[in-house]
Amino acid sequence: MDCLKNQIRILNTFGIQLKNKTKMNTLPTKSDIETAHEKIKPFIHKTPILKSESINKLLDSSLFFKCENFQKAGAFKMRGATNAILSLSKNELQNGVATHSSGNHAGALALAARILNVPSYIAMPENAPQIKINAVKGYGGNITFCKATLEDRERTLNGIVEKTSAAFIHPFDDYRIITGQATCAKEIYEEMKNIDYLIAPVGGGGLLSGSILATKYFSENTKVIGAEPHGADDAFRSIRDNKIYPSVNPNTIADGLLTSLSKKTFEIIKNGVYKIITVKEESIKSAMYLIWERMKIIIEPSSATVLAVVMENPEIFYNKQVALILSGGNISPLFKP
Amino acid sequence: MDCLKNQIRILNTFGIQLKNKTKMNTLPTKSDIETAHEKIKPFIHKTPILKSESINKLLDSSLFFKCENFQKAGAFKMRGATNAILSLSKNELQNGVATHSSGNHAGALALAARILNVPSYIAMPENAPQIKINAVKGYGGNITFCKATLEDRERTLNGIVEKTSAAFIHPFDDYRIITGQATCAKEIYEEMKNIDYLIAPVGGGGLLSGSILATKYFSENTKVIGAEPHGADDAFRSIRDNKIYPSVNPNTIADGLLTSLSKKTFEIIKNGVYKIITVKEESIKSAMYLIWERMKIIIEPSSATVLAVVMENPEIFYNKQVALILSGGNISPLFKP
Repeated sequence: MDCLKNQIRILNTFGIQLKNKTKMNTLPTKSDIETAHEKIKPFIHKTPILKSESINKLLDSSLFFKCENFQKAGAFKMRGATNAILSLSKNELQNGVATHSSGNHAGALALAARILNVPSYIAMPENAPQIKINAVKGYGGNITFCKATLEDRERTLNGIVEKTSAAFIHPFDDYRIITGQATCAKEIYEEMKNIDYLIAPVGGGGLLSGSILATKYFSENTKVIGAEPHGADDAFRSIRDNKIYPSVNPNTIADGLLTSLSKKTFEIIKNGVYKIITVKEESIKSAMYLIWERMKIIIEPSSATVLAVVMENPEIFYNKQVALILSGGNISPLFKP
Repeated sequence: MDCLKNQIRILNTFGIQLKNKTKMNTLPTKSDIETAHEKIKPFIHKTPILKSESINKLLDSSLFFKCENFQKAGAFKMRGATNAILSLSKNELQNGVATHSSGNHAGALALAARILNVPSYIAMPENAPQIKINAVKGYGGNITFCKATLEDRERTLNGIVEKTSAAFIHPFDDYRIITGQATCAKEIYEEMKNIDYLIAPVGGGGLLSGSILATKYFSENTKVIGAEPHGADDAFRSIRDNKIYPSVNPNTIADGLLTSLSKKTFEIIKNGVYKIITVKEESIKSAMYLIWERMKIIIEPSSATVLAVVMENPEIFYNKQVALILSGGNISPLFKP
């Protein structure tokens, strides 16, 4: 947990301290998202949209779950990582890609790089969860372990980039990443019409801002809601007060939602989000267990925030058609006979 | 566990001690299965067939998982229960249906009865798992609790049947049930051609014997394998020695596979199975965790036996097309942050 809290501060500053080699400098357009989708399609799964009669009955609404837990590398992050790599020139690609992360971005970048046949270099804190270290290794990523301090992670990534000339891919403060994540909501709207609300979790805001752009272009009447743990409510406060708050000592089991917004994600979310709704830890746990039990699919806590929003606010969603993005499934549940 | 062991002895004798009201007395034909499938289709899910690139790579074979964990009531049992109820005459139906079970048959029968608008009466041992009691209650089944002894369960069910005139539906020693379970493999063959092997778990043998019949009628070149825990290998020994062994003190986490074969299932399996292969507890656990981790779906231990068979015998399945029935997903995994 300490490691994760450190990571937040790092991610918040990294976008500024490290220069990307190729930039996409303007807000992604409809055509950018369409082009990105065509480009990444051969390398990602078109994930299914599932519904659960029993959960619908329980909550008196019509919920459609977009299952990015079934995405390659177990999370939506694969979309952005693949798009980012495919956006690099041949020249840039030859040196591979680099990032630092103890989470799903690391695994996704390593897998996307392997599929696209370029090397990947990941700075990972020594105390990153073993399951995530194993994933990156399994995907052939070159891990450099570092201490879980801001200084050491910066130093380590800078060292990697200097040595390898690999292209740094920020987890969310990058329009190529945001464009990739936007393809998830685009797929929803291709399959479903008349969605009243789309709910996506918000951490750094890559998925939420991508979802907002896709909604603007492909389903303009849908309202987009960000789901955030009460114990990590920096995005809620940032949008309320119109300034980016850093995420200080977040306290939640939703380990994918600990980062604060970046400049690019803040701008898009500020202009396009209907609401950010915070949820209690209790609700996140209940929502996760409910999905495990009724839908028989494994989702991680960050994904459960979207259902927690509906559970805490049934009046908003009564009789509505609601799309919920289950962002990932990288968790190791235990079995006790 | 003790409760489950008791249940085995009970199920083995029940078929004889209680008379069903309407019998289907001859081996189900191709047309019986086709008719049953059409009848139950509106009330069951056509479950998806999933594959996992990473598991295929790991095991050098081509595996197709038929996901009955996504079936209504969380298990294939819904197929047989629905078919059995739909096979009763109006007259018989008016008094509802009865069974005893602490497992998936109880939940499936209660749900099928609710959907078809008839009452259901379930004798459940007081020490049945809370999650299964909740499922039956949630589906509107009328539970009569009894002690976990053979005598008390018989007495309780007989009491229910006398009082209500409900029709007793045996979990597997019943051709209507076997015919219903056969629709699962039928769906596989409708979607997939050239399946070399079909693997189904074997407990009482309802699913395995249904799968054997469907294979005979719809994919005659496929070899059908039964997967059984080494710690509950009565079916393996029964087929080897050509006599039904009771299941005495079975010891396995696969709680759906504790019963022994019945007369009807034994006859079909004896004549149609390619092999019954037993697997170690270690392999069942590994297979279950592997499916949870790589496929992000929740399956119960009984389902994991089918993958355990492939893991323990890779040489048989090398480069083969293998369909595996994931029989159910009724388990409550724990989350430890």
